[in-house]
Amino acid sequence: MPEPIVFMLDVAPAGAAEPASGWASTVHRVAPGEPSLFATDLAATRGDGVFETLGVLDGCAQAVDAHFWRLANSAELLELPAPNLEQWRVAMHIAGDALPHDRQGGIKLALSRGVEGGDRPTGWLIATVADDDFRNRTEGWSVVTLDRGYRHDLSAHAPWLLPGAKTLSYAVNMAALREAERRGADNAIFVSSDGYVMEAPQSTVLLRRGDTLVTPKTDIGILPGTTQLSAFALAQEWGLATEDRLVPADELLDSDGVWLLSSVKLATPITAVDGHPIAVDRELSDRLNAALLARRE
Amino acid sequence: MPEPIVFMLDVAPAGAAEPASGWASTVHRVAPGEPSLFATDLAATRGDGVFETLGVLDGCAQAVDAHFWRLANSAELLELPAPNLEQWRVAMHIAGDALPHDRQGGIKLALSRGVEGGDRPTGWLIATVADDDFRNRTEGWSVVTLDRGYRHDLSAHAPWLLPGAKTLSYAVNMAALREAERRGADNAIFVSSDGYVMEAPQSTVLLRRGDTLVTPKTDIGILPGTTQLSAFALAQEWGLATEDRLVPADELLDSDGVWLLSSVKLATPITAVDGHPIAVDRELSDRLNAALLARRE
Repeated sequence: MPEPIVFMLDVAPAGAAEPASGWASTVHRVAPGEPSLFATDLAATRGDGVFETLGVLDGCAQAVDAHFWRLANSAELLELPAPNLEQWRVAMHIAGDALPHDRQGGIKLALSRGVEGGDRPTGWLIATVADDDFRNRTEGWSVVTLDRGYRHDLSAHAPWLLPGAKTLSYAVNMAALREAERRGADNAIFVSSDGYVMEAPQSTVLLRRGDTLVTPKTDIGILPGTTQLSAFALAQEWGLATEDRLVPADELLDSDGVWLLSSVKLATPITAVDGHPIAVDRELSDRLNAALLARRE
Repeated sequence: MPEPIVFMLDVAPAGAAEPASGWASTVHRVAPGEPSLFATDLAATRGDGVFETLGVLDGCAQAVDAHFWRLANSAELLELPAPNLEQWRVAMHIAGDALPHDRQGGIKLALSRGVEGGDRPTGWLIATVADDDFRNRTEGWSVVTLDRGYRHDLSAHAPWLLPGAKTLSYAVNMAALREAERRGADNAIFVSSDGYVMEAPQSTVLLRRGDTLVTPKTDIGILPGTTQLSAFALAQEWGLATEDRLVPADELLDSDGVWLLSSVKLATPITAVDGHPIAVDRELSDRLNAALLARRE
């Protein structure tokens, strides 16, 4: 796998004016093989920060505004200083330019509370060439459903559980992927303790029911999906209806198509749920992926 | 605050023989102000690792075996390579020796899944002089109860939620402490969604009911408390009975004393729960803290 390229940011507060030397002067490319985080950074000791992963096509990051909105929203939910999006935009362009323009890739933005006892956040970017043939987009994945442990209506009254924030505390998400593999599946879909579809550990769930595309509404403690937003915009162009609503887990089995959506892998059709084969809509998969790959913003 | 002292470990597999140069040669003190973690370490990007914090008295780490047991148990729950405890013991001694012997302190041990795409875990230690007058031990804390969102009987069938593992994914624990502060309290106690006492974000709950010390049983998805183990051993010497059992949240209000126990702060008596003053047993607090401070192992 090509080595990821790391950039550290001198994090500026939101609203700070661009320095005379330009925002680019606040973005530092890290030499390969050099450590760049302190062992006392709260990212590493507490998972105390937020992140985004953007897809990159032709050196151009995709759905930037949606990711920036979510980064700022996650930061607010964690009571982190608001990110300076002007600075992050410049950093992201630098990171995108560092990737080979003829390959698909990704850029991770990470913002932590900083070194323990310090007074400013830590920001960094990781630009990666996708080491993937993206067969997921055509061959699809089998999934298992896993109990997320929370009721669907919990998040409204328990903000300290950080519903809707994309945090660096992803150990449970990673464990869910291992559990899926152990059960012979490719991925997992989290279900609330009272039986509603939530999200996958690294992606958003989309279903087609007749002429309607459906995604779980986000006030059940899940992330708003950036690729799902793009998919809904496309669906509306194509004359399909769209719905955000509660999705009982049973609907995973009798829909006309189920997908996981994410920024780098894009639309992955689901072929089986808990060992039961389900309907696969290859035509819509191909159409979605073609349209998502044709974006350049 | 004195700067923490960081040591990086060349992590050896469990069971590996000591190198000819000795385990000490695998422990590297990091120069102050030097970064030592890669930005792509899964500790920082996914909170994907485990940790322990040990109290240090006279340069001597406390309750080492209990912490090592829990470190190994957490690693197993996360399917990390088993830690080589012989190596960690040497590293911990080196870290303890680096602290001034006339001050109370702490050592954090952290073990992550390593750099993404790499093939070995990352291990490090952070030795810190306690910047604290430990008034918590005499003045106590007020707490609020916060819903942890999980039922008490969830963890048995959902191991992917990592119940009982002390992971680096602590964003929710940190958010709970901020919520407590927002409500004017000093700390928080998590309660299961069906009303049982669980644990505090960084400590174990202990109650006295008559001649019995009670702690929530750990099969409800909480950490076994290392300081609680010591407290139970002391209680048994002192002729008190001990119980691990389900603790309904109401018992926080009508017990003869409630404490939070942790490795550096030791026993903190709770003075109020959700704004209601509760009985404080200062005699037992003082006795517990004196005995815990008298330990040298």
